[in-house]
Amino acid sequence: AGDVAAGQAKAAVCAACHGADGIATIPGYPNLKGQNEQYIVSSLNAYKNKERNGGLAAVMQAQAAALSDADVANLAAYYASLK
Amino acid sequence: AGDVAAGQAKAAVCAACHGADGIATIPGYPNLKGQNEQYIVSSLNAYKNKERNGGLAAVMQAQAAALSDADVANLAAYYASLK
Repeated sequence: AGDVAAGQAKAAVCAACHGADGIATIPGYPNLKGQNEQYIVSSLNAYKNKERNGGLAAVMQAQAAALSDADVANLAAYYASLK
Repeated sequence: AGDVAAGQAKAAVCAACHGADGIATIPGYPNLKGQNEQYIVSSLNAYKNKERNGGLAAVMQAQAAALSDADVANLAAYYASLK
């Protein structure tokens, strides 16, 4: 499982759209607060692998391309931990 | 915007994985409770159009294929309405 503190540090860039508290600032983006950890890992990898398209997926493909496997695990742990 | 009551009726089949209360019953699936309405519409259409792949996307491609535009709008309104 990921490291919540490391995920929180990495999440600074995510907050612009997904909110500092994981509640999205823009209706077209998902809330991530309390989302399932395993689902976040799966989703980030799908964006990273350009398997997810449609909607605003291009934005996330670009973001996810810069993430290591550890980053993905840490971000998932962080957002899943938010209550 | 969609019709919450119609969405709730349509959501019976969704509940098997996403939970009767929008909290997923399986870690690999996302919680939908309180998710942004516009994001749910975008996601369902991406599955319907087979633009979303990777992870467990094949499951949702099959489910979304059976949804009309009205169904998509109603389901989004319903899940967004859950607190």
